[in-house]
Amino acid sequence: MEQINNIQVVPCTSSNYLKPFRVNYSQNGTKKSWDFMRTHDSVSVLIFNTSSHCFILVKQFRPAVYMCEWEKSKPQPPEDADPDSEENPESHPDPPPASSGVTYELCAGLVDKPELSLEEIARQEILEECGYDVPVTKLRKIASYRSGVGVTGSKQTMFYAEVSDENCVGEGGGRPQEGELIEVVKVPLQESMNFAYDEGIPKTMGVIFSFIWFHSNMSPKYKISTNV
Amino acid sequence: MEQINNIQVVPCTSSNYLKPFRVNYSQNGTKKSWDFMRTHDSVSVLIFNTSSHCFILVKQFRPAVYMCEWEKSKPQPPEDADPDSEENPESHPDPPPASSGVTYELCAGLVDKPELSLEEIARQEILEECGYDVPVTKLRKIASYRSGVGVTGSKQTMFYAEVSDENCVGEGGGRPQEGELIEVVKVPLQESMNFAYDEGIPKTMGVIFSFIWFHSNMSPKYKISTNV
Repeated sequence: MEQINNIQVVPCTSSNYLKPFRVNYSQNGTKKSWDFMRTHDSVSVLIFNTSSHCFILVKQFRPAVYMCEWEKSKPQPPEDADPDSEENPESHPDPPPASSGVTYELCAGLVDKPELSLEEIARQEILEECGYDVPVTKLRKIASYRSGVGVTGSKQTMFYAEVSDENCVGEGGGRPQEGELIEVVKVPLQESMNFAYDEGIPKTMGVIFSFIWFHSNMSPKYKISTNV
Repeated sequence: MEQINNIQVVPCTSSNYLKPFRVNYSQNGTKKSWDFMRTHDSVSVLIFNTSSHCFILVKQFRPAVYMCEWEKSKPQPPEDADPDSEENPESHPDPPPASSGVTYELCAGLVDKPELSLEEIARQEILEECGYDVPVTKLRKIASYRSGVGVTGSKQTMFYAEVSDENCVGEGGGRPQEGELIEVVKVPLQESMNFAYDEGIPKTMGVIFSFIWFHSNMSPKYKISTNV
């Protein structure tokens, strides 16, 4: 699907997105310090379409995921090479295919609008990314938890939203003007547990967790086997 | 449990742990760039003690989580203040209790020893953090997935390990010489789903996912209700 080329990696001395801070503190009298990053909390949504009995996921190219694969596939530099030195495409003659950086994820977004509730932010993301217009009253909280406990420690809240074909008012796809290139993907309920545990399909833990949550909690309603 | 004080936050211009990089690339002919961080892949382990029918978790103070709470609780600075300026304890007269930075997590560790398999790394973490000596053959893979898709994109593999009191050879607790202060916690099976969904108990998604996985996959063996 995607074509990725002209890859060039440079150290990033000043980023608008990644801003490391250091906290110095005393824990039980012992002086310590820890490097962390500030980030926003986030929401994610398991969307189930009751017309087609499909889950609605998003699929996108993730540069950070791609760079992990790029890193693993590149020829090893000599041991005395400077690991922070600039790298250029010539140093990596055979980069992995773009598909290795594409992941399946729940519809999700940052909590960066203080005037909106978590449910309202989730509702906006469902509309923008997946094209479904659902009232906030249809959102049910599944769980909240900490993500990136070593680096950001931010809180994520996961919701469940039932939609129908009648709620579909657009194509979704995110905000192309902000560089988002999101593809909406349907996963049929009957195939969902195979999808969740298929190691060949790169995905987030949120996808696996929410699918198994649905099978444990919603399956009686939709009369499916819980043989997962 | 923990006493945290003398908190001081400073911008972190050079970190041994957080090293932002920038990748410049072309996606379908359009030039883009993305800031990311390199990190190791990781493993996590759901440990179930068959003698006491308890899950074995770890509990530790996470500075990044604490700083999220600290941030939310501090008095708002005037809008024209420099957000990157150094902060000192005087600016925050009433910091949140240390307990707000403590999280419950699966036993976990980084994949930073190329000579060891994922199972061998998981086995070492079980021993170091929780004090159980289990053969790698007792480890069963639950799933693998991408974590931090926006920033690190690293891969995490989750295992399931059954242990018994006979496997317990030490107290665990991590590597205090490396600053780890880990407390081993037992969660009884019968209480585990209430624990998972209790919003008052800060935890990672891995804890919730793995508990619900156990209830879906292992509960017939342990004759418990799956009413979750």
